[in-house]
Amino acid sequence: MVTEPLVLSIDTMGGDNAPGMVIEGVDMAIDSLGDVEFLLFGDEVLLGPFLDKFPRVRAASNVRHTTDAVLDEDKVGQALRTRRESSMRKAINAVYDGEAAGIISAGNTGALMAMAKFVLKTLPGIDRPAIASCFPTERGLTVMLDLGANIDCDAENLVQFAVMGEAYARNVLGLEYPTVGILNVGVEGLKGNDSVKRAASILQNSDLPMQFIGFVEGTDIGAGTVDVVVTDGFTGNIALKTAEGTVNFFSAALKQAMTSSLRAKLGALLTRPAFAELKMRMDPRCYNGAMFLGLNGICIKSHGGTDAFGFAHAVQVAADLITNSINESIKEDYARISLSDEMEAAVVDAQ
Amino acid sequence: MVTEPLVLSIDTMGGDNAPGMVIEGVDMAIDSLGDVEFLLFGDEVLLGPFLDKFPRVRAASNVRHTTDAVLDEDKVGQALRTRRESSMRKAINAVYDGEAAGIISAGNTGALMAMAKFVLKTLPGIDRPAIASCFPTERGLTVMLDLGANIDCDAENLVQFAVMGEAYARNVLGLEYPTVGILNVGVEGLKGNDSVKRAASILQNSDLPMQFIGFVEGTDIGAGTVDVVVTDGFTGNIALKTAEGTVNFFSAALKQAMTSSLRAKLGALLTRPAFAELKMRMDPRCYNGAMFLGLNGICIKSHGGTDAFGFAHAVQVAADLITNSINESIKEDYARISLSDEMEAAVVDAQ
Repeated sequence: MVTEPLVLSIDTMGGDNAPGMVIEGVDMAIDSLGDVEFLLFGDEVLLGPFLDKFPRVRAASNVRHTTDAVLDEDKVGQALRTRRESSMRKAINAVYDGEAAGIISAGNTGALMAMAKFVLKTLPGIDRPAIASCFPTERGLTVMLDLGANIDCDAENLVQFAVMGEAYARNVLGLEYPTVGILNVGVEGLKGNDSVKRAASILQNSDLPMQFIGFVEGTDIGAGTVDVVVTDGFTGNIALKTAEGTVNFFSAALKQAMTSSLRAKLGALLTRPAFAELKMRMDPRCYNGAMFLGLNGICIKSHGGTDAFGFAHAVQVAADLITNSINESIKEDYARISLSDEMEAAVVDAQ
Repeated sequence: MVTEPLVLSIDTMGGDNAPGMVIEGVDMAIDSLGDVEFLLFGDEVLLGPFLDKFPRVRAASNVRHTTDAVLDEDKVGQALRTRRESSMRKAINAVYDGEAAGIISAGNTGALMAMAKFVLKTLPGIDRPAIASCFPTERGLTVMLDLGANIDCDAENLVQFAVMGEAYARNVLGLEYPTVGILNVGVEGLKGNDSVKRAASILQNSDLPMQFIGFVEGTDIGAGTVDVVVTDGFTGNIALKTAEGTVNFFSAALKQAMTSSLRAKLGALLTRPAFAELKMRMDPRCYNGAMFLGLNGICIKSHGGTDAFGFAHAVQVAADLITNSINESIKEDYARISLSDEMEAAVVDAQ
């Protein structure tokens, strides 16, 4: 699956500061990626000055000219129908055609998901792709999914998300036996809606290479109680953004406290290096790059408002998924759960 | 409605450190409550030493002896059937009988909600009570509901929650024209599930004394974008606990940063007073006291793990709801929305 060199397809037209931010981000990513090539989809006239500025990117890239781009305000259906010549669509096509191993875009999330699903299709056994992201917790890193691709999810969707999250935690985070929990309003088995209860019961009876610990609560996300938090896209999106808003509020309150008196200001001066480290630990750019898991190809969504540093991280996320063969692992795991279902059915029949 | 003196019914047997924590909390609450009397439901043998310790509470109270108590591990149905002589049930009955204007308990949340709903019933037009709580944001205070009473909510439930939250913000927070938003995965009208979309459309066409601004996202909770955040109990519970977990994580990371070097420790010493203020601003005890809105009587749930200071705040919340006639206001508002629906229907018929 992994070819040498690694080829990545880049939508250079997505994001608030595209294409400059994108090209600079690609340049930064080169440092950590080793042998890599880029297919840059976008307007070569606009790209020219930035490629002059970042000669390493020019040397490692193949520019595929197109002047059309998906706009942030494009509706999903409209983008799917009318943006066939867009940089986003063509960048996805390159993955489908086998020219690139993964695609990264900072453009319209809904359009990217719809196009990627339409072009790449889902992996066998996966009904719906999920948006997954990794973020810092008290214990280390936690991956959470779905973060907004699927508003309504049934038990089977949640089980598939668990399989995908576990495959990520094992293969990319390198955890031998990842812990997985389903987000709920309490840890007792009786709590929650039908989807989470049924999903928990299916996972309890599966023989997947993970430690399914049952339900977790909102507090467990920041605590890092489990390596993988499984939830529907409505709840996941709101939980993620609530955490983000809480960090913003806390940071603002902290800043206010640190400038509230001369004494506090002096203290703030002394704690500056320690705070810089804390800030880095919480820096959303270091966790940029939402993974569209469950697609028959690697597709990464960078935050539209990020800078080159953040985009470079999204490129790194794509490379990590590819080199760790995430999709092969999801397919293998999913085969196990299907087998386990069949076995269970056999047991039921035999009774 | 408000009688002089204010009479509050207290379940002294609920909470991790009951009844000591409860009696000490009542003592603290006396300072701010003025002319108040308490009906203390619980075991008079256990209460005795604490009433000796807090003579002001003894002087202001009427002890109603009972030895039975709802346990944390009691299932809701079981508590409802078998705990008719419990301190919790009898404390609720006192509100139904008109002996007290409100009841406060730090006991089992599910049992308290079920008993309160069974005994007090809901207000006219309200199908389901909601759990509401007030918390600090960048802009001030925000009230959010439902926080876990109703796992699945339809549009009508959400509209009722909006009415109740708005009544609280106007009457208790003293806002003339509160802003209200429905929690969703995006601010655009097309996003979200059917319940939030329909609820938004009903509220947009109502003539309630509030400023309905449409959808808000998770980040808006901490930002304080609106005074009232309306959501279903599943999402609300998870959002609240996610925010709590994020604050815990941030605090732990901050503490770690502040002790990471000698220089940082010195800075921490200097910033200590400013931090104490910040800590107070974030202190969950200052926001303790979840309101069960929509019941035909005031019922407040204190956190079970709180201390006397937190319990005193929950008592204060009950007093605030009573003296500001929250239920009269909800009834009036609800009448308006019904009228508005009828008018709308009349318009439709006329077309």
